[in-house]
Amino acid sequence: MVSKNQIKRITGLHQKKYRQQEALFLAEGVKVISELLDSSFELEHLFEIEPLFPQVSDSKKTMATESDLKKMSALSTANNCLAVFKIPPPKPIDESGLIVALDDIRDPGNLGTILRLCDWFGIKQVVCSKETVDLYNPKVVQATMGSLARVNVVYADLRDFLSDTKLPVFGTFMDGDNIYAENLPSNGIIVMGNEANGISPEVEKRTTKRISIPRFGDLQKTESLNVATATAIILSEFRRK
Amino acid sequence: MVSKNQIKRITGLHQKKYRQQEALFLAEGVKVISELLDSSFELEHLFEIEPLFPQVSDSKKTMATESDLKKMSALSTANNCLAVFKIPPPKPIDESGLIVALDDIRDPGNLGTILRLCDWFGIKQVVCSKETVDLYNPKVVQATMGSLARVNVVYADLRDFLSDTKLPVFGTFMDGDNIYAENLPSNGIIVMGNEANGISPEVEKRTTKRISIPRFGDLQKTESLNVATATAIILSEFRRK
Repeated sequence: MVSKNQIKRITGLHQKKYRQQEALFLAEGVKVISELLDSSFELEHLFEIEPLFPQVSDSKKTMATESDLKKMSALSTANNCLAVFKIPPPKPIDESGLIVALDDIRDPGNLGTILRLCDWFGIKQVVCSKETVDLYNPKVVQATMGSLARVNVVYADLRDFLSDTKLPVFGTFMDGDNIYAENLPSNGIIVMGNEANGISPEVEKRTTKRISIPRFGDLQKTESLNVATATAIILSEFRRK
Repeated sequence: MVSKNQIKRITGLHQKKYRQQEALFLAEGVKVISELLDSSFELEHLFEIEPLFPQVSDSKKTMATESDLKKMSALSTANNCLAVFKIPPPKPIDESGLIVALDDIRDPGNLGTILRLCDWFGIKQVVCSKETVDLYNPKVVQATMGSLARVNVVYADLRDFLSDTKLPVFGTFMDGDNIYAENLPSNGIIVMGNEANGISPEVEKRTTKRISIPRFGDLQKTESLNVATATAIILSEFRRK
């Protein structure tokens, strides 16, 4: 049985303020929960409408009804299970290999998709500006499909981080050099900008290399790429030989 | 003034059935409406809360209140304008250049993003299976950001279309050849599959070349790419020299 108090505590975790206070976050659905259980994330509690995770001890799980899960869910369609995990303390960024830096990404789906792309392309470290949407927002957790178990995400002042680094800093701009013609390194920071405004002037100042993705459609009219699809193309270019 | 009947007629167009009956569809927001006005699409009527489009004749526009637009909108957040456009008769596919074929794409955001990518990469023709989400679904129209003015989208039986074509047919599969090592042609059909199930067996039989996007993360665990980001990488590979 799920108590009213439990439901209240869980719905509190829909909000960043309470996630930070309690150092807890929500994950929903078998796929995401399985990936997190199978990682270094620590389970606080699991709610399920049928026995789905035999590996979780009874003291850590509660049977719930469909209606309980609907009340607890932060998603538009509730799943058959919901778990509360502990937010781990942030790990420092190791300045080697490729690092993705996000300058104020606001859409949870975009952040989730970008982390999934980092996972695919073996990029282990992501630095987000403080204004970037919270990693533990339930819609971000959902969109990562479990990739957050494999990518270290840190929130920092991007200007300070980029001022201090010795790695080359790549930014995408309309007037940048054709990415297809570049010899791209296997160490460096790739900055991706805000959905509406791109890379902010303060961060732009700290980029050391301006790149661009060539456009093949009507140059006057074609809509810009969205940040997740642009990230896909850029990471692919950095990794292909 | 917007009449109750007008609102009823507009909300009817949220549904595919009525869009097909009336051969009309909705577009919302200044950006998308501007792009469509500036294309071969024919405006049926415009509703706006302030004068936004001086180029539209008075007989074709009605001043609306915010509350009217909220009632008419098919999106979760209503804009300050909404337009009804005529659905043009389908244009035949010209079998030359690169063509994207979509095998049962269900998510409106994915279809919109893929059309935006086609626009960027100068791909003028897209063939969708009959099960693919309707191009004129208001969420698709929104996600294309106006690209549907520049890409010809046709619904057809994909199996028949692929059986009849003389062009090479590319499909993405786990066991395909590394796309980075391929010499990709400037004529051909690129098939992208359903979000959950990938390319269907009947369509797979008709592919002539199996390709894959190499994965650089943990081979056992990394989540697959979503269809829109996979399309971004594949179109980029076809266009880069």
